[in-house]
Amino acid sequence: MTANEPSGMNTDRVVLAHGGGGVMTGRLIAEHFVTKLKNDLLTPLDDGAIVPWRDGEVVFTTDSYVITPLEFPGGDIGSMSVAGTINDLAVMGAKPIALSLGMIIEEGLPMAVLDRIVDSIAETAKAAGVCIATGDTKVIERRSGDGLFINTAGIGRMRPDVRLSTRRIEADDAILVSGTLADHGLTIMSVRNDIEFESELRSDAAPLNGLIEEMLVCGADVKFMRDATRGGVAGVLADLSENTGLSIEIDEAELPITTTARHAAEMLGLDPITVANEGKCVSVVAKGDAEKLLEAMRAHPLGKRAAIIGRMTSADPPLVELNTLAGGQRIIQRPYGEDLPRIC
Amino acid sequence: MTANEPSGMNTDRVVLAHGGGGVMTGRLIAEHFVTKLKNDLLTPLDDGAIVPWRDGEVVFTTDSYVITPLEFPGGDIGSMSVAGTINDLAVMGAKPIALSLGMIIEEGLPMAVLDRIVDSIAETAKAAGVCIATGDTKVIERRSGDGLFINTAGIGRMRPDVRLSTRRIEADDAILVSGTLADHGLTIMSVRNDIEFESELRSDAAPLNGLIEEMLVCGADVKFMRDATRGGVAGVLADLSENTGLSIEIDEAELPITTTARHAAEMLGLDPITVANEGKCVSVVAKGDAEKLLEAMRAHPLGKRAAIIGRMTSADPPLVELNTLAGGQRIIQRPYGEDLPRIC
Repeated sequence: MTANEPSGMNTDRVVLAHGGGGVMTGRLIAEHFVTKLKNDLLTPLDDGAIVPWRDGEVVFTTDSYVITPLEFPGGDIGSMSVAGTINDLAVMGAKPIALSLGMIIEEGLPMAVLDRIVDSIAETAKAAGVCIATGDTKVIERRSGDGLFINTAGIGRMRPDVRLSTRRIEADDAILVSGTLADHGLTIMSVRNDIEFESELRSDAAPLNGLIEEMLVCGADVKFMRDATRGGVAGVLADLSENTGLSIEIDEAELPITTTARHAAEMLGLDPITVANEGKCVSVVAKGDAEKLLEAMRAHPLGKRAAIIGRMTSADPPLVELNTLAGGQRIIQRPYGEDLPRIC
Repeated sequence: MTANEPSGMNTDRVVLAHGGGGVMTGRLIAEHFVTKLKNDLLTPLDDGAIVPWRDGEVVFTTDSYVITPLEFPGGDIGSMSVAGTINDLAVMGAKPIALSLGMIIEEGLPMAVLDRIVDSIAETAKAAGVCIATGDTKVIERRSGDGLFINTAGIGRMRPDVRLSTRRIEADDAILVSGTLADHGLTIMSVRNDIEFESELRSDAAPLNGLIEEMLVCGADVKFMRDATRGGVAGVLADLSENTGLSIEIDEAELPITTTARHAAEMLGLDPITVANEGKCVSVVAKGDAEKLLEAMRAHPLGKRAAIIGRMTSADPPLVELNTLAGGQRIIQRPYGEDLPRIC
């Protein structure tokens, strides 16, 4: 291609030269990214994308993904990096418009793995109706060999009619989850520990913008939404109690959990309410609208197992309490540190 | 702070638990990020930032920074990660508004280093008039120990009166650089090779949005701007020739290079025109406006050593040629792979 191209270069794996900003970088981007991610906004030779915008707030978010293994049942780092950032925009009440894609690739990554992950990025973005507008690629020296880190930032258009605010939350408001708990975290942990279950555990990684749109247009007075990732539903509830100064009461009997996930959690000694999800959101709605919201969620493929799991209360001091299946009560605490590194 | 906090935890270094999404993560973000980066848009407990927007295009860009060492004369990975993304927005003709900050921290990073880098991020952003609107922090296991990767994405408002387009470039248009070449790359290389020079080499990492605003309002018909990072000025010129189908003629005598940089490049066997900069832009302007643009640039502190270095020509086939100091000519090629990994 050019006079100074080394002959016989092995292109089965990513090499440092792919990150140098020269001919090799151009070829990596053209052949392995642009063809798959092609859209009107992505102009690979520019430093960024120009996104037409009418009046209205821009919601702006970012997330880095460092999960290992890169591929797992139900998803991969690519689908997660698209779904996760879309979900962060959607729970704020925005319609996701475009994502940026920053790849940090470890030298030696098989090109076939990279290709599968970029395919997954392209498919997930397409299914969610969001485009990859701009990107950047860096290559770092080989270390442990599992290496691909992805950052996606996202911009979304704030829906004009949305009134999400923790300040509007009051006692008796209902708390819902959009589906079964802990599937993502338990899947990753099982894969890493090489544990198999009768029914396959699968990550729930999925973009929730479609489901959330249904929740916002169904007429229910939704006051809060948050995707329950690191720290699980427990982490979201701890934030909610802290921000509102209210208590929360959760009914263990109402928590949607698959039998397989329940077995996996018992085996691994984990409480499913603290385990990471990648395609579930927690929402708070006025008590009288809870059933309406539940119905709207269950009508969407990603909300079939949605449930009303509890309520805000004025009990003092503010705590998150679980009414257990056994008829007792226990306090749910915010996870302290790290149950499992690199789960997202 | 909470009942399940380990006693006597060493907080001099980042530990995996800082990335778990629990209490430790909350504390890291509150104590080491939010206090320093504080602004109206940054609400640490939300998933993103809400940025007011009037009509007008959003320019959206992203860049990851993997440079080693993390700190070097003239800057650090923090100042680079802010300046670089601001520059990507500015050269597209946008006014940079807000950045996202995605940190991937290697376990064991001294907290003092992290604090200095976050200070540098805060200072660079403040000086450029841009805010850090949203962020994310992940912690990965210890590997080689040099570990901090930063991704910044940025949004900017497209200036309504800007007419940047490579399609408007024609023969005789003038090519300018905003200052001395190769300072960043030579600094990093000298630090890594432990070479010292009489006068200190310093990275040129700097946000160019102020300089670029002056260039765009001075009345000159600017047709193209690009910051000359990986691949140096040579990489930008190669892109320019390829995109326009025109040739480029550069006068070596006009290239602004400090004496120290010239010595360093000779010692390291490098051509300064191919070496990375982090605070220099290449621009193309109608021939008759070149002096006006040069004057506007030189009036700005970051453009004092700006120079007209060459011109577009209609010579066929399209090539980038250098008129050497010795009176000869040589072809400048796009760098092939990687002169130096992890230079940005």
